[in-house]
Amino acid sequence: MNDAYLNFVNSPLGGKLVRTLGLPKPEVLRRYRADQPEFDGLVAIGAGREPQCLDALAGVIARLGMTSVAHESAALWMPLAARHGLMTGRFEPVDAGSPARVNALIFDASGIDDSRHLEPLYTFFHDALRSVARCGRLVVLGRTPQLCASARQWTAQRALEGFVRSLGKEARRGMTANLIYVAPDAAHGIESTLRFLLSPRSAYVSGQVVRIESAPAVQALTDTFDWQRPLAGRRAMVTGAARGIGAAIAHELAAQGAHVTGIDIPAARDALDSTMRHIAGTALAFDITAPEAPANIAAALDEKGIDIVVHNAGITKDKTVAKMSVDAWRSVIDINLSAQERIDDALLDAGTLRDGGRIVCVSSIGGIAGNVGQINYAASKAGVIGRVESMATPLRARGITINAVAPGFIETQMTAKMPLAIREAGRRMNSMSQGGQPVDVAQTIAWLAHPGSAGVTGQVVRVCGQSLIGA
Amino acid sequence: MNDAYLNFVNSPLGGKLVRTLGLPKPEVLRRYRADQPEFDGLVAIGAGREPQCLDALAGVIARLGMTSVAHESAALWMPLAARHGLMTGRFEPVDAGSPARVNALIFDASGIDDSRHLEPLYTFFHDALRSVARCGRLVVLGRTPQLCASARQWTAQRALEGFVRSLGKEARRGMTANLIYVAPDAAHGIESTLRFLLSPRSAYVSGQVVRIESAPAVQALTDTFDWQRPLAGRRAMVTGAARGIGAAIAHELAAQGAHVTGIDIPAARDALDSTMRHIAGTALAFDITAPEAPANIAAALDEKGIDIVVHNAGITKDKTVAKMSVDAWRSVIDINLSAQERIDDALLDAGTLRDGGRIVCVSSIGGIAGNVGQINYAASKAGVIGRVESMATPLRARGITINAVAPGFIETQMTAKMPLAIREAGRRMNSMSQGGQPVDVAQTIAWLAHPGSAGVTGQVVRVCGQSLIGA
Repeated sequence: MNDAYLNFVNSPLGGKLVRTLGLPKPEVLRRYRADQPEFDGLVAIGAGREPQCLDALAGVIARLGMTSVAHESAALWMPLAARHGLMTGRFEPVDAGSPARVNALIFDASGIDDSRHLEPLYTFFHDALRSVARCGRLVVLGRTPQLCASARQWTAQRALEGFVRSLGKEARRGMTANLIYVAPDAAHGIESTLRFLLSPRSAYVSGQVVRIESAPAVQALTDTFDWQRPLAGRRAMVTGAARGIGAAIAHELAAQGAHVTGIDIPAARDALDSTMRHIAGTALAFDITAPEAPANIAAALDEKGIDIVVHNAGITKDKTVAKMSVDAWRSVIDINLSAQERIDDALLDAGTLRDGGRIVCVSSIGGIAGNVGQINYAASKAGVIGRVESMATPLRARGITINAVAPGFIETQMTAKMPLAIREAGRRMNSMSQGGQPVDVAQTIAWLAHPGSAGVTGQVVRVCGQSLIGA
Repeated sequence: MNDAYLNFVNSPLGGKLVRTLGLPKPEVLRRYRADQPEFDGLVAIGAGREPQCLDALAGVIARLGMTSVAHESAALWMPLAARHGLMTGRFEPVDAGSPARVNALIFDASGIDDSRHLEPLYTFFHDALRSVARCGRLVVLGRTPQLCASARQWTAQRALEGFVRSLGKEARRGMTANLIYVAPDAAHGIESTLRFLLSPRSAYVSGQVVRIESAPAVQALTDTFDWQRPLAGRRAMVTGAARGIGAAIAHELAAQGAHVTGIDIPAARDALDSTMRHIAGTALAFDITAPEAPANIAAALDEKGIDIVVHNAGITKDKTVAKMSVDAWRSVIDINLSAQERIDDALLDAGTLRDGGRIVCVSSIGGIAGNVGQINYAASKAGVIGRVESMATPLRARGITINAVAPGFIETQMTAKMPLAIREAGRRMNSMSQGGQPVDVAQTIAWLAHPGSAGVTGQVVRVCGQSLIGA
């Protein structure tokens, strides 16, 4: 839970020592605090030819109350910004030595239809990256490659991914870099995602690709929407909610207005009760793998229904496959994967999960990349990705989205027990040079659970500080 | 080009020292040699419920001349093997202390339709992994998730990926672990891919997922097919063929029977001529980025046509984006990406690339994961992945496949010039604890260029020893 190196290098003495010795200095990440403005300062806008998202973007920036400056690549920005009543000016690079002053760079690449026309992307970040303040936000908007009209356009749009992942690795100083692929006619649906990626709420989300599809439900959000308590009136269920990441998820969903029903095993009843008391939630002590659990959960939630299901419960039982017991295999697969399937089937069959609902599953980088000694865990977490990919299409008709988050190294009681060398490697092998916090996972889940995220489904978002590890 | 550590730890003195100190000992990988049998020894077969690929598998194993043993999970194997005239028996785990004796483990998971039924996968590898000899081969056959009939089946099949990637990381001793997803009715098309993954030709390919789709062209291969010279009578073109990986590709395609036209810049003419002379190929000294190059290449090849196009030419011009010159951006994008697009368009428009042809593009792990100082290179190599994904569908009607290989750390003159610490990190951060050789990339390309690989298209295969680095 405690990253002593991070704390030390950010102390006055430690900072001096680190500079003298040339050691890596992880940045103290700026995270969301209710007593600090979520969005402020300056955003610089760049664009490729025929940008498709600038109008929607100007609307969002105006609602956020940020001031914008236009890079020379985004000549269209000034009149659009004026139409949205947005304060704007021209981007000027900072002089060497003067403090960086831009808080976000956003580039609209959605109109680029050929690799020959990628150059403004380079020019914008070449000119502007040095002007970005610590913990700044870098966002590129593109067109979903699979929905492009030509192979040339698809290719150019796919190139953005290599660009943004490199940008995230270069940026340092707590900055994040992410790519949003917007489907044709889906620009109206970018707001919840753009807000999340510009906010300190996404402190540990970098190097990610999010696709926004066209979803009618998104259009229901109006100027009067309560962006501070977006989950007000919604009912959420979180498994494994007694402690750790599960408790953080329950807290965050409640903070954003949801009523939370927390589920955990009977042995964790005291911790579960305590967590739920803090957030005026409901505690349900169930073993989710019991044969009767799915029906019991559905029955307990049926009267008022449920809008948000978070499958967080999971265990590890690590051994290399030759030494692994059959019980270690069975229990990990059953708790981490099969139980999710049975519970969702029960909630969907009974109609307990309401139309427009949200399912968010916790996967893992181990499910993406595999891991030594975790053949059971990795199989279960890869299976969770399969759930998300397979169920997105059938659930679309009911306006239900299903997504997964894949945490990397998160500072928990579990990671605190790792051997020092493995813990330090896990902490440093990412673009932030540090582990994430449970709240980082919780904030990402809250964004996916948001009513405005109707266009985000079937996806896996890593919460890993852009870990080096992948597949 | 020279991994001193690998050589040292595999010397008598070095081996003793490594054992004493407990240092990692990368295995000397077994690679293909014309004077050694490509396939020999014992293969152990396991299976989940209702396996779909055993019959096709028995046919391949019989043609390879390997002996098989059946794990208790694969009760169906014995009668099937007998029908194919295949020597077979029951799998018996080796006693502790006796030498490992199985050269390959193959598990048919294609019939598993629910996460509850994954257990035989665990049981098989739990029982058999310790019996595998060094540089053994682990292969799992599954059903393409996207083509599964139910969400449960899709989920179970997707879980295989996490399993196999973990297996590759655990296996060590030069073993590889790969997953083949077979489309319904495509089991007849597994032979070229299964041969490649069982052969020493795939020494540095591990942790990969290959999809086989149903393709009518595959059925044309008969028992009389010449598997030793599968490219006989085919005409291939390789860009950047003068030296390094390009020269290795040209050599391998020629060794498998193709006539090779090598292309490289006029400044490399002497090296190109020398490389082509060795393989009785044709040298074309062209700058592929020149405006007239695509038309000239098409004209030079037009008379006899071309069957195999390998886009290997590529450069790096590394700088962080703030320091990168516009020329470094432009030249890398143009050579590595846009030139490929122009050349393919010219070859396709003129009909120079024949029906049933093969396009293989060289991408990079940098294009998948991004890299510091390579924003131009990563964008170009991600764009190459976009080419493969976007062109597979339109080319299917003509029986042309398009795929990419993504090399990881390959021992070349380029990597030999890296600073020691970066070179050593690149070499060791993979499941083989060593860099690959240019021939490993060349063999992978030859498999994709194979007439039997008609069912493999739109894919990216990493040649990286299962590098830890990914996205």
